[in-house]
Amino acid sequence: MRIALDAMGSDRAPAVEVEGAVGALLDQDADVRVVLVGDRDRLEAELARFPDAPRDRLEIHHASEVIEMGEAPATAIRRKRDSSIVVGVNLLKAGEVDAFISAGSTGAVMAASLVTLRSIPGVDRPPVGARIPTSQGTCLAVDVGANVDCKPHQLVQFAQLGSVYAEDMLGIQNPRVGLLNIGTEPEKGNEVVVEAYGLLEKTPHLNFIGNVEGREIVSGKCDVLVADGFVGNVLLKFYESVAGLITGMLKRELTDAGVQLDLDRIFRSLDYAGIGGAPLLGVNGVVIICHGGSPPLAIRNAIKVAAQSVRAEMVEHMAARLARPAEGAQP
Amino acid sequence: MRIALDAMGSDRAPAVEVEGAVGALLDQDADVRVVLVGDRDRLEAELARFPDAPRDRLEIHHASEVIEMGEAPATAIRRKRDSSIVVGVNLLKAGEVDAFISAGSTGAVMAASLVTLRSIPGVDRPPVGARIPTSQGTCLAVDVGANVDCKPHQLVQFAQLGSVYAEDMLGIQNPRVGLLNIGTEPEKGNEVVVEAYGLLEKTPHLNFIGNVEGREIVSGKCDVLVADGFVGNVLLKFYESVAGLITGMLKRELTDAGVQLDLDRIFRSLDYAGIGGAPLLGVNGVVIICHGGSPPLAIRNAIKVAAQSVRAEMVEHMAARLARPAEGAQP
Repeated sequence: MRIALDAMGSDRAPAVEVEGAVGALLDQDADVRVVLVGDRDRLEAELARFPDAPRDRLEIHHASEVIEMGEAPATAIRRKRDSSIVVGVNLLKAGEVDAFISAGSTGAVMAASLVTLRSIPGVDRPPVGARIPTSQGTCLAVDVGANVDCKPHQLVQFAQLGSVYAEDMLGIQNPRVGLLNIGTEPEKGNEVVVEAYGLLEKTPHLNFIGNVEGREIVSGKCDVLVADGFVGNVLLKFYESVAGLITGMLKRELTDAGVQLDLDRIFRSLDYAGIGGAPLLGVNGVVIICHGGSPPLAIRNAIKVAAQSVRAEMVEHMAARLARPAEGAQP
Repeated sequence: MRIALDAMGSDRAPAVEVEGAVGALLDQDADVRVVLVGDRDRLEAELARFPDAPRDRLEIHHASEVIEMGEAPATAIRRKRDSSIVVGVNLLKAGEVDAFISAGSTGAVMAASLVTLRSIPGVDRPPVGARIPTSQGTCLAVDVGANVDCKPHQLVQFAQLGSVYAEDMLGIQNPRVGLLNIGTEPEKGNEVVVEAYGLLEKTPHLNFIGNVEGREIVSGKCDVLVADGFVGNVLLKFYESVAGLITGMLKRELTDAGVQLDLDRIFRSLDYAGIGGAPLLGVNGVVIICHGGSPPLAIRNAIKVAAQSVRAEMVEHMAARLARPAEGAQP
């Protein structure tokens, strides 16, 4: 299996990507190969820092350009045909690699994936999923920012895609799907979620458990949390920052009190680096998006997640699931 | 000053309300009087538990009915004319009290306030504000659940009301108003916030600082955070639960490690009970809504907040602020 990694994407590229890739290869079985996409000279120089890197499983695919964070995605992917993002997605489209990972511009990765790979039939607008830590384990929130102003039937697609992800990647049989809302009753919420509730109830092969309120997420009420990308994005970013606020308050107190406590170990389950990237769901290919500020550990874990997605045949399962309602409608 | 308190609203009514009221009176200066609205016999029995209660500043106003949490608000306030909520709001309308507080059905309190007190001219749909703890102090989030499917100009009203609240109640001169969004650029977000951004920029007497992302809230980037009630509600409830999740994780660890640490003291600034209720903004009167699960301390603080709102002439200031744009438009 070959996984393409945009080596120029993160805030500290390519150092973070190269370190993450080397770590992943030393970690993963011999079947996994990583293709670093980016400036060949810079990548060779960076790789020289890792004499123990398994070079037989580590290739460099040159790409001369880099899409910057501030660029308008649609324009950037048209103009920078030799950017690491466009080149990486093209490798995936051509079947030369099995997955693509980037910590670069999320908008550009989404735009390139949509234009080049196209969405699975039955998916209007591919969402991004993110694993949110709960007291019970993990909940996949879909969408966390790819799409705003979603239609009710698009939320149903998010539910179906998230459900397959939870089965294949989180190992959850018949995952519980909840609709993020401001109350538990079916009539609660804005127009879109009220209509989505009715559609979700009627969707076959979906374990829809109803509305989930903001306070119920961390208690692990559902395995898949369906939301418009606006609220999903606000929620995800807020989560990260609240955990940081609280651990910060605590570290000061512990220091003052002279108490030794390994907070990083305690809060490991809340740490995004340990979780890896966020999958772009519903396109014809495994695409993983990482934070711009990702540390090497996040890249390493994203490679693990990508390999698992390929092995689980997640994309094929999603295509089959999204095709089901139409089949069911036939006589 | 007389403050009416719905004594039948909370999950543990009237015990919590009576204890909170007695505590507030012992705390506040002699100018404040509390009117307990509810079943006279039950309230007298409850008050008997507090022999030191300043009865000269504590009245009971009988109300024979209670609106339950599950009841449809509009129907409930029509049918239960002698409920503690309807009676309390009527006392405020009649000028017999200066403020009204309830930990009962939020929907019923809002409906009764809107129907009876009416909104300030220039306010379409009164929002609920909630103080969110940040690393810098407090941020007022508006709206946290009263209104979903808001129009852009309604978000502007929320900004104006929140701005006056921050001045009068949080003592912040020229408060920084942020628009909750998924990116900082003006063109980011859904249709409503993109249009609201343009309107907020042009609103006079408003210190609009632009978009605020989910991760920037707790760092104290703004004093007033403007949001549609759907996302505001999800955020608020999520905040409460995340703090609980983390302190729960920590308590177990500290116990295992045999470490003594007063977490309640450390996280006091994150505690909602210490903050008191959430104001219903933009109606002709001071109305404070408390959690159904409020402890006596939350009731006590809500009474403090109500008294401060009255003294600051907050409602009058809001009416003046909302009237300004029209004045400015005259030749």
